Amino acid sequence: MPARSDDTSILCVGSVALDSVETPFGKAERVLGGSAVYFSAAATLFHPVQVVGVVGDDYPLSDLDFLADRGADLSGIERREGASFFWAGRYHFDLSSRDTLETRLGVFADFEPKIPASFRRARYVFLGNIDPVLQHDVLDQVESPEVVACDTMNYWIEASRDALVDLLARVRILIINDEEVRQLAGEPNLLKAARWVQAHGPELVVVKKGEHGAMLFGDDWLFFVPGFPLEAVFDPTGAGDAFAGGFVGYLARAGSLAPDDLRRAMVYGSVMGSYAVEEFSVRRLIDLSQADIQRRLVQFREITAFETHVGQFAGR
Amino acid sequence: MPARSDDTSILCVGSVALDSVETPFGKAERVLGGSAVYFSAAATLFHPVQVVGVVGDDYPLSDLDFLADRGADLSGIERREGASFFWAGRYHFDLSSRDTLETRLGVFADFEPKIPASFRRARYVFLGNIDPVLQHDVLDQVESPEVVACDTMNYWIEASRDALVDLLARVRILIINDEEVRQLAGEPNLLKAARWVQAHGPELVVVKKGEHGAMLFGDDWLFFVPGFPLEAVFDPTGAGDAFAGGFVGYLARAGSLAPDDLRRAMVYGSVMGSYAVEEFSVRRLIDLSQADIQRRLVQFREITAFETHVGQFAGR
Repeated sequence: MPARSDDTSILCVGSVALDSVETPFGKAERVLGGSAVYFSAAATLFHPVQVVGVVGDDYPLSDLDFLADRGADLSGIERREGASFFWAGRYHFDLSSRDTLETRLGVFADFEPKIPASFRRARYVFLGNIDPVLQHDVLDQVESPEVVACDTMNYWIEASRDALVDLLARVRILIINDEEVRQLAGEPNLLKAARWVQAHGPELVVVKKGEHGAMLFGDDWLFFVPGFPLEAVFDPTGAGDAFAGGFVGYLARAGSLAPDDLRRAMVYGSVMGSYAVEEFSVRRLIDLSQADIQRRLVQFREITAFETHVGQFAGR
Repeated sequence: MPARSDDTSILCVGSVALDSVETPFGKAERVLGGSAVYFSAAATLFHPVQVVGVVGDDYPLSDLDFLADRGADLSGIERREGASFFWAGRYHFDLSSRDTLETRLGVFADFEPKIPASFRRARYVFLGNIDPVLQHDVLDQVESPEVVACDTMNYWIEASRDALVDLLARVRILIINDEEVRQLAGEPNLLKAARWVQAHGPELVVVKKGEHGAMLFGDDWLFFVPGFPLEAVFDPTGAGDAFAGGFVGYLARAGSLAPDDLRRAMVYGSVMGSYAVEEFSVRRLIDLSQADIQRRLVQFREITAFETHVGQFAGR
């Protein structure tokens, strides 16, 4: 794919971090991490991305060359004196829970997203999981995006609830996990929680359920994709951002939010999430080929497709 | 459907109980319950069933007339002096967990399944969740069933493990929930746990995941069906047995274990499980029409189907 950055690119704003991760299978020290990195590693396999973030002077920026090579414009990553955002965590035996060992915000503590002039006409915007106040700032700087997709987390739902609820009115697609949407809506039933969100702005709600898959809630329809059954999940970090990258990346490529495209986008998101967890950091996404992506898309179809044969009992 | 009971019927052995259930939405006292009842209430919508179980002299047998009306042969339900199996439970607010308030085995404590002569040539057998030793006894009494499907629970995995593992060699389809299969196989990964089961006998493993759906593991393929998104789950009791009823009922009706039929059977199982939870006891299944079943089957297809459009990026 030729590198390019223009109005049709996806603008992605989020964290650009270093992660130290321990799982039952091994350990990786100070590897590429952060929502903007996982998102872009997945999305650039579908469509060009413009990345906005901040790193310290310790960041191995050349490790992001693979993103530039496939169409990411990294000129919006500000480099400042100080330490990059650093997160260290340890996953438990079954990988479904983890302990945070250390979080050092570094230069990310004062992050004020500055959207370069050439990025401001982006038609697709992905707001990674950062303070909703900053997500507002980003939208204030872009002209008239067609599609704003937004992630968040339990911390902001508690600490910055008003800004987050206000933000929803500016967002077309909320991407959130099942616990978070229940918390945000104050409603344990997912259908009702999604409807609560829709009443506050977004016409589309994507609910990520980890190994249990993901659901898309449209106006009067919904779509479900399972988690891809893997024999070994190596490192779950970033799966949700990789999902968002595949999802938004495909939509931008298709240039459409038609239900058929949204369904495929959900599956492409799941494809990217499933690959992301096969190795530490974004490693599995670096060399991933279009053939790998298409192969797993077909596998998703094989594990979910059935013929209804309605009427086969007629007359019996 | 004309009532009939012959070699092509499904033989179902399990509990025939009375349940008192409390949920956040209401309360039902001494209503129809038990694995054989839920199974039959679902399966008879697809195929005739022969039921074997035991009840006390307090059981409202006429409440089972709806089963006879649609093709169940209830002559294998033994009526003995004493109290019927009684279970009382209370579901928590989110319905995903419950407390057992009371269990009185009554006449079920000495249950020794006696398979009537006219049931012994059944080609399809469903072994409900009872002591694996009794499940062996049932199989000793039937001639040469083509398809034996079997359910179990954590209690038997602990208390009667050897008999259960021996039983697996006589079972073609194990129907079990996700926690149970992990416990049985001693393996947290579902793919590996299913393979462990298959190495011990069953060629097919159905893993029920409650609201997260169900998976079927075949020899070198698998299939996934989501839980049906319901706005209100009224009473989760018996959902797994209703699933098994739809699953085995459809297979017996189709007379085939071809992958396409197994896939549809998984969806019919999910249809029945999803209806079962909409009311207390088996109430929702009593008046359920074939049109209701087909309508929800189509809804399952709508929430899972997507077109791969592989090749749409070719040349870009």
